[in-house]
Amino acid sequence: MSADPTQTDPDKYKVVFENDRVRVLEYRDKPGDRTSPHRHPDTVMFTMSAFERRLIRGDQQRDVQLDAGRVNWLAAQEHSGENIGATDSHALFVELKEPPRRSPESAVELGPTSGS
Amino acid sequence: MSADPTQTDPDKYKVVFENDRVRVLEYRDKPGDRTSPHRHPDTVMFTMSAFERRLIRGDQQRDVQLDAGRVNWLAAQEHSGENIGATDSHALFVELKEPPRRSPESAVELGPTSGS
Repeated sequence: MSADPTQTDPDKYKVVFENDRVRVLEYRDKPGDRTSPHRHPDTVMFTMSAFERRLIRGDQQRDVQLDAGRVNWLAAQEHSGENIGATDSHALFVELKEPPRRSPESAVELGPTSGS
Repeated sequence: MSADPTQTDPDKYKVVFENDRVRVLEYRDKPGDRTSPHRHPDTVMFTMSAFERRLIRGDQQRDVQLDAGRVNWLAAQEHSGENIGATDSHALFVELKEPPRRSPESAVELGPTSGS
């Protein structure tokens, strides 16, 4: 389960920029849409709309409510997601290609961490 | 001239997120505003508004016209900037803290490179 989201959900995740250090994805979905299990590297996420999302990893799940125009951090992780709100999701993901210099993923919170 | 833009131009560059791998700056200015010479590391830049800008490095200068909602790459460089258009600038800068594994800066284009 280390699948690239542009391969598991190509209708929702589009590559809008890529070079040797980063890849930038644009994400869009509609209420009720779900993604297949996929993997994110360490990522800066910008919310372009407000949306509500359920993140699922194994038997864990976490519901998050995200405001528009916010910067969030998504630590490297595998999950799937579901739009559980009433609004379309629109977000940008700046993926860092270099590997994290950090402890194992088990310590990582499911889903994004609030920034500003 | 390796100054941090949050120190040279604190009225224009604000830190909106920071961790061990990235720092995210929000930039705002008005027509006619100029920045002092400062340094950017490798950076993903999102334009939140359309604006026109003159970038200056030593005796080089380059004028760029940026559309709103675009992803650009700003390779590590020192420069100063001037809003030469008629609209306010609003942009986000995702700065990569890890150093680039790249050839010297002299080869780097002044200002951003178009993405999408």
